[in-house]
Amino acid sequence: MKFVRFALKNDEVTKQGILSSEEIKEISGDIFNDWEYTGETFAGSQIELLAPIEPNQVIGIGANFVKDIKELPEQPPEMPVFFFKSLPSVTGPGSEIKIPDSIEEVKFESEIAVVMGKEANQIKEDDVLDHIFGYTVGNDVTAPQYFHEDGHWTLGKSFNTFTPLGPVIETDFDPTKARIEAIHNGAKKQDSKTDLMIVSIQRMIAYLSNVMILKPGDIILTGSPVGADFLAENDEIVCRVEGIGSLKNSVTKVKNSSLV
Amino acid sequence: MKFVRFALKNDEVTKQGILSSEEIKEISGDIFNDWEYTGETFAGSQIELLAPIEPNQVIGIGANFVKDIKELPEQPPEMPVFFFKSLPSVTGPGSEIKIPDSIEEVKFESEIAVVMGKEANQIKEDDVLDHIFGYTVGNDVTAPQYFHEDGHWTLGKSFNTFTPLGPVIETDFDPTKARIEAIHNGAKKQDSKTDLMIVSIQRMIAYLSNVMILKPGDIILTGSPVGADFLAENDEIVCRVEGIGSLKNSVTKVKNSSLV
Repeated sequence: MKFVRFALKNDEVTKQGILSSEEIKEISGDIFNDWEYTGETFAGSQIELLAPIEPNQVIGIGANFVKDIKELPEQPPEMPVFFFKSLPSVTGPGSEIKIPDSIEEVKFESEIAVVMGKEANQIKEDDVLDHIFGYTVGNDVTAPQYFHEDGHWTLGKSFNTFTPLGPVIETDFDPTKARIEAIHNGAKKQDSKTDLMIVSIQRMIAYLSNVMILKPGDIILTGSPVGADFLAENDEIVCRVEGIGSLKNSVTKVKNSSLV
Repeated sequence: MKFVRFALKNDEVTKQGILSSEEIKEISGDIFNDWEYTGETFAGSQIELLAPIEPNQVIGIGANFVKDIKELPEQPPEMPVFFFKSLPSVTGPGSEIKIPDSIEEVKFESEIAVVMGKEANQIKEDDVLDHIFGYTVGNDVTAPQYFHEDGHWTLGKSFNTFTPLGPVIETDFDPTKARIEAIHNGAKKQDSKTDLMIVSIQRMIAYLSNVMILKPGDIILTGSPVGADFLAENDEIVCRVEGIGSLKNSVTKVKNSSLV
């Protein structure tokens, strides 16, 4: 089932729905608990998709793919690199990634984004998939120039619009056998299957649930394949996960006051 | 004015109110927009205070105090260290800081916590105070053992209950002339005025607003004076800011599954 958030063209009201090949059936309620069809349907031509969720928190994992299966470590790292991204970094499919003019280089990173569906407190790896609501595609846009020299990634990951999500939350998806791609101005730059992940989705979420209680609406960005590259003004970047969909965004430059 | 969140003893319903020396007057509505008195009042003996806000995001700044005013750098750092803390790290006054048994050392850090009240998008330092709703006391509890060797603080700052906040949000407070203390098992460990801050509150919030749009309910932990120390089981830690109040918490140990 493909959950979406959308607005009618030239309208500001946010709606929720289920996307099929023919149409969007509007729903109301809390997608994690009780929801129902409203009876309204819309054609794709009538609407604009938004990020399929307003996350509670956005958590990412660092450097989580090898290039070749032979490079996988025998043991995954004892302590993976985790980071938060800001909530205003979230934006939807079709929107512009806005690069402040104080930033010279910005990378795209195509990823599977997990949407948590149930509270997860100290869960085991075997129980992780039961706590997941669904999956969307994420672009973990990153400005390495704003990585602090002492190692903190917070700023470089958190600029407004630096986390496109979408187009849908797919609930019927097997993340252990998925393919993640990025197509940059028409050229394929990333193309890996999830067997090249160093820390599995089950492992990273079990780990996080032993630090903090994960809640419905938490988003976990699960790492990006080798091949992430730099974006420039007017570029088009498509992040694609087989079985979920394609997340297309354009790139624009915006003024920001020089950072103090 | 002192805004609080509270529950009646042996009741789970969360209420909001205004605290005076005599009583709590219950209010309803959105403290950042429209709220009104319900007409109900409660005595302190009837209620338990909760964290005075459920934050939208929690952002901290690293190493922001010198010991002596002569040590202040001529120029503040070009890029301060910022980090996020998890939402489940937030807990209230009087509650237990729960240290997982996989952690050997945990530090307290007494801080002024800013509660944003208006959306702040690329604002100037001079406009920062107008965007602040009020101030509470924060304890930025930290497990350095879960700082990643590459510099990431995310995990070590994000364990459940690692961000006590409270007791009140004080809207009538001058952060530029404040005194921050920590009293650990009755012994004073931190005691500094805000003139020892390296990056001022105005500067850090102006900076952050140029990265991400700050929203009502965002919490900014503004840094901790010299003297932070380690907590042990059954300790009592009081973080105090003159003009806001005292935030007292006890320390307990909890089991967590060994982190994978």
